[in-house]
Amino acid sequence: MTSNSFGNIFRITTWGESHGKAIGVVIDGCPAGLPLTENDIQDALAVRAPGQNPYTSPRTEKDKAEIYSGVFEGITTGTPISIIIHNQDADSSKYEAMKTILRPGHANFTYLEKYGVFDYRGGGRSSARETACRVAAGAIAKKLLATKNIRFITHLCAVGNIQAPASEDFAAISTQKSKSALFVGDAKTEANMIAALEKAKTAGDSLGGVVEFIVLGLPVGLGDPMYEKLEANLAKAMLSIHASKGFEIGLGFSAATISGSEHNDLFVKNETGISTSTNRAGGTLGGISTGQPLIGRVAFKPTSSIQKAQETLDLQGEKTTFTLPEGSRHDPCVAIRAVPVVEAMCALVLIDAVLMARSSRWELP
Amino acid sequence: MTSNSFGNIFRITTWGESHGKAIGVVIDGCPAGLPLTENDIQDALAVRAPGQNPYTSPRTEKDKAEIYSGVFEGITTGTPISIIIHNQDADSSKYEAMKTILRPGHANFTYLEKYGVFDYRGGGRSSARETACRVAAGAIAKKLLATKNIRFITHLCAVGNIQAPASEDFAAISTQKSKSALFVGDAKTEANMIAALEKAKTAGDSLGGVVEFIVLGLPVGLGDPMYEKLEANLAKAMLSIHASKGFEIGLGFSAATISGSEHNDLFVKNETGISTSTNRAGGTLGGISTGQPLIGRVAFKPTSSIQKAQETLDLQGEKTTFTLPEGSRHDPCVAIRAVPVVEAMCALVLIDAVLMARSSRWELP
Amino acid sequence: MTSNSFGNIFRITTWGESHGKAIGVVIDGCPAGLPLTENDIQDALAVRAPGQNPYTSPRTEKDKAEIYSGVFEGITTGTPISIIIHNQDADSSKYEAMKTILRPGHANFTYLEKYGVFDYRGGGRSSARETACRVAAGAIAKKLLATKNIRFITHLCAVGNIQAPASEDFAAISTQKSKSALFVGDAKTEANMIAALEKAKTAGDSLGGVVEFIVLGLPVGLGDPMYEKLEANLAKAMLSIHASKGFEIGLGFSAATISGSEHNDLFVKNETGISTSTNRAGGTLGGISTGQPLIGRVAFKPTSSIQKAQETLDLQGEKTTFTLPEGSRHDPCVAIRAVPVVEAMCALVLIDAVLMARSSRWELP
Amino acid sequence: MTSNSFGNIFRITTWGESHGKAIGVVIDGCPAGLPLTENDIQDALAVRAPGQNPYTSPRTEKDKAEIYSGVFEGITTGTPISIIIHNQDADSSKYEAMKTILRPGHANFTYLEKYGVFDYRGGGRSSARETACRVAAGAIAKKLLATKNIRFITHLCAVGNIQAPASEDFAAISTQKSKSALFVGDAKTEANMIAALEKAKTAGDSLGGVVEFIVLGLPVGLGDPMYEKLEANLAKAMLSIHASKGFEIGLGFSAATISGSEHNDLFVKNETGISTSTNRAGGTLGGISTGQPLIGRVAFKPTSSIQKAQETLDLQGEKTTFTLPEGSRHDPCVAIRAVPVVEAMCALVLIDAVLMARSSRWELP
Repeated sequence: MTSNSFGNIFRITTWGESHGKAIGVVIDGCPAGLPLTENDIQDALAVRAPGQNPYTSPRTEKDKAEIYSGVFEGITTGTPISIIIHNQDADSSKYEAMKTILRPGHANFTYLEKYGVFDYRGGGRSSARETACRVAAGAIAKKLLATKNIRFITHLCAVGNIQAPASEDFAAISTQKSKSALFVGDAKTEANMIAALEKAKTAGDSLGGVVEFIVLGLPVGLGDPMYEKLEANLAKAMLSIHASKGFEIGLGFSAATISGSEHNDLFVKNETGISTSTNRAGGTLGGISTGQPLIGRVAFKPTSSIQKAQETLDLQGEKTTFTLPEGSRHDPCVAIRAVPVVEAMCALVLIDAVLMARSSRWELP
Repeated sequence: MTSNSFGNIFRITTWGESHGKAIGVVIDGCPAGLPLTENDIQDALAVRAPGQNPYTSPRTEKDKAEIYSGVFEGITTGTPISIIIHNQDADSSKYEAMKTILRPGHANFTYLEKYGVFDYRGGGRSSARETACRVAAGAIAKKLLATKNIRFITHLCAVGNIQAPASEDFAAISTQKSKSALFVGDAKTEANMIAALEKAKTAGDSLGGVVEFIVLGLPVGLGDPMYEKLEANLAKAMLSIHASKGFEIGLGFSAATISGSEHNDLFVKNETGISTSTNRAGGTLGGISTGQPLIGRVAFKPTSSIQKAQETLDLQGEKTTFTLPEGSRHDPCVAIRAVPVVEAMCALVLIDAVLMARSSRWELP
Repeated sequence: MTSNSFGNIFRITTWGESHGKAIGVVIDGCPAGLPLTENDIQDALAVRAPGQNPYTSPRTEKDKAEIYSGVFEGITTGTPISIIIHNQDADSSKYEAMKTILRPGHANFTYLEKYGVFDYRGGGRSSARETACRVAAGAIAKKLLATKNIRFITHLCAVGNIQAPASEDFAAISTQKSKSALFVGDAKTEANMIAALEKAKTAGDSLGGVVEFIVLGLPVGLGDPMYEKLEANLAKAMLSIHASKGFEIGLGFSAATISGSEHNDLFVKNETGISTSTNRAGGTLGGISTGQPLIGRVAFKPTSSIQKAQETLDLQGEKTTFTLPEGSRHDPCVAIRAVPVVEAMCALVLIDAVLMARSSRWELP
Repeated sequence: MTSNSFGNIFRITTWGESHGKAIGVVIDGCPAGLPLTENDIQDALAVRAPGQNPYTSPRTEKDKAEIYSGVFEGITTGTPISIIIHNQDADSSKYEAMKTILRPGHANFTYLEKYGVFDYRGGGRSSARETACRVAAGAIAKKLLATKNIRFITHLCAVGNIQAPASEDFAAISTQKSKSALFVGDAKTEANMIAALEKAKTAGDSLGGVVEFIVLGLPVGLGDPMYEKLEANLAKAMLSIHASKGFEIGLGFSAATISGSEHNDLFVKNETGISTSTNRAGGTLGGISTGQPLIGRVAFKPTSSIQKAQETLDLQGEKTTFTLPEGSRHDPCVAIRAVPVVEAMCALVLIDAVLMARSSRWELP
């Protein structure tokens, strides 16, 4: 129940402030026997890395993940895996000016009210830098799942009012996404998004966006009824990501607008067994995976930090105007960088569900 | 991590099948000292009770909640509160015909695949009847919160494509809702919803809907950063409700379509201290309550059980047609009955956050 | 973390006061597929039942366990199993006189200080009657374990200063115990214990005792390193039993008095693989089962309720003398009735460890 | 439930292998507002440090604890505190020879059987070096508790068959212990222990021992009934320490040998309120603290690593003789170094109980 841990059997605990010595994650409950190297983690972080396109903030540091424990001779040992990413490019001086200002859309107000003390430098603990730890841990979860042929396609499906067309051609989305700096699965949509982002950037403003996750290869039976439904844990995972404001599975909010006969997926038989002819449910029934693709979306608000001046208060409650210091780095759209984070959280939910599912039946002799 | 419990300090565990002897809930961690009677629970159940309008299923039983433990001379004692609701109107014979059929949109397929055995009578454990236990437990949470002036307005804001107009006149919503059999906060919208429901009913079909929760009177500082954000726990709570498909807080998915300067709530000073001039965030920043109203929405799919015939398979994978037996009772729109359940889950998340918040600071002597 | 639950994957939650309507237990996480009847539970309760010998309190009720959920057509379904035992013989009038008295060795003082309210009737929640719920849940755990040939021998090995001789002839202990109303594995010792108990009873006094658990048939590899060591969870389980004051595994406190060369068990090869020539460790190394018999002991204080008059205070802090009302029923030695409770808790720890162990290794394709 | 974490609200997670890059601990749930420096941790580690007397192993490294997060400008912020101790003196070459040998009394057998892989260097994860992390976290817990006047006296009360005399002169024990390299509270006993240790050392052997904890200044009401009894959590904490074999509270196993009239503590009134004239219970009733000193003992087996040659097997099951390599460092009595670890675990249990106790009562307006 402590707030910096996620998962039950495969459980991560993250720590660290944006401008402290380092950030890190401890993964407890990773099964023994998985080949794992620092490169596995590094590759995952590279995808998330800031500065790889003009629409994510140009932090120049190269995050380097070091595995401090839990791996011996290249194999996970069943003991906790500690991964540490040292902070190398943390110039806090810019933040001095913001120290006493309540930043609109930021958490410094609530942290201060709750705790009475706040490491304001770079957003401290509330910085999205923490998500690097999720991506690192998610890389391990994904590697485990990959050995069971479970694979992920996560893409940016909306920025502002630009939306990717609905499509179930997962292969096409995956191919196009792999070529896209913005993780977009449709070339034309990406071009439109870039135009919108350029416009927002010029205006000193930011845009919201939506990330869609698609998971293929899941067996039937993952997720536990009632309070540990697969979608319940996914929802929690996604709403724990910085700047997320909504979650839906399958048709989601659109499901609320149609009728039962339009929504129900009908059971059919195919070569591999029982399936459904459509997948409006998004891959679960009663909180348990159906074997269909797991599909859902996460909404992200526009980046709170914008270049435009904003009226606000200082800590004493006096009116002031907040303007980002020159050269401050901020993404015009946090949803872009959220794509690998959504994928990581999805993997963390699923590996836990896979491990839990081992206890659902008793084998009589 | 067991799947039938929810909450950390104030923790509920529900049990029971729809057509078993009873259903029940054990509430562990309720603080001592709260006056509590069976009537408190009964009143909450009455709101949820089936059969009170033509659009929820006409189950004629009168659920009666009995408190079996944890209350002494009308006061909670700090020991577990066990509440039991006996099943009185459980004619399982109708379900015999459905026993071997994979019902579209239902969980009998996934339960059977996962566990190898399923109490199919009345939907067994997967029946929404379980939500009576949530409402019973939520009544206690709400009573605790009420002593701190925290109050709830939860209303049905959409059915099919009928949507209530956006409004921040919470008093008007509350007043109108209290007169509405469908928990709708706007009279004209309700009339339109009823027309839509009638049409669906006549067609042997069902409709989806959206429930909005509004919580007033929250202090600043509830919710814990990172993985126990208030909205993360709310999202999990809501996606654990039967038939829910989406969750959003504040502007939610709409936030993804606008710019940062349109979304950021600006800090202002008012008579009671620091506030924000708008509440697009929906009452949290960084996962911690801001003191603004907590507002969000939950999407529900249309009821899976419909009168219309549907093509499906039996357990052997043979094609068959599924038609609900004559006289089967089913809500044309599950979102109606979900209103008190959303409110109950909201209260459960909040009472836990209130109790957790007691540990956030250390008082030095 | 709530205080009325035990276990992680196989998790029990108990509720109920001694003189309330009923007591009960919800078992969540029991795997599907185990044949289970009310008789399985009833048989376990019969062993524990009061009144079966002159040295446990003559409560005449016949506890009847009813399964309310989680079993369908005689098979566990993976959903929560709710077991309820109604209280039938609960005459609270005797307790009126004690209502305002701080009973020496009892918990009414601490409950009142902690909660401000206490259901004093029959000891309320602090009554050892709660252990019936543990025995009921333990019966299920034992039945699961029995299918893997894991079996239990738990016996009373000391009463006051009468101690059973050390013995590794488990078959003899088991045989003799099954004939003993006091669960003693050695006939001569039992005779001496009976003499000591008679003497204590005549003096209006009580005696402490020690219970030893022996578990045979465990595989290597149960228990998790560090904070979930098998012996750590056993210790918690045992110290959670009413009136227990100590726990030891293997040689326990005696191990502290000898040398390493006297204590180390040496590895040897036998027909079934690697074993140790002795079992001073009691069946674990590093918190993980070795495949040797799991052996340990639990110390119980003498029953607090004695016939002898005792000086004490009333709730106002005024001096008074406490004498048990005529005809009050109390065991002269709680350790006797604790024997099946120790066995049940042992089984609960082990079934959880068995289920957890399924996640320790990842099978590569 | 993951095995490398302990505590609920104040929760530690430790990681690291003896000869890896570092070991560390993440403390989540430490309340904000406590002044904390690296020196606070360092001072605690110094007490535990190896090499400070001839009877603990002469590892020459100087453990240096670094705080990586969770403290800002000298004050805890409510975010996770990450403490890292780099491994500096880790010559693994000596362990090469032992790599293929099942070491008597060691965990390499069970780890290998459970996980299929084991970092054997320096005992890997099973090394008692992990206890440095407990001591570091315990230092924070102790500092919090000290602000409420809760203080600890933990001393070595037995080595082999040398036992300290029973005494309730806590001040004398404390004073003498502070002068003792072995943490012994009685000078004469210490001399005898040293003689016994010298003898064991000369014989290439080791000795077991017993550690007693005494906690003063506790309020009434800590600990939760049933499965979170104070003594239950203490028992788990203590049996999670390397080489521990038993736990008792109050009179412990001796309580089993006496009568109720000899054991019951009688309530009396003194200047500060209600107290008991004796403290045989050791500070709890019904699992809840009484306000009396909390007293108990933990038994440790003799160090498994001894100079004497021992018959054993290699990993292939072939007979071999195990002799510690020349110059291997091992404590002749692990109980000595366990003293600060017992104290740390005790503090961790208590701080969690203190934080939990904040939720036991609801304050009506």
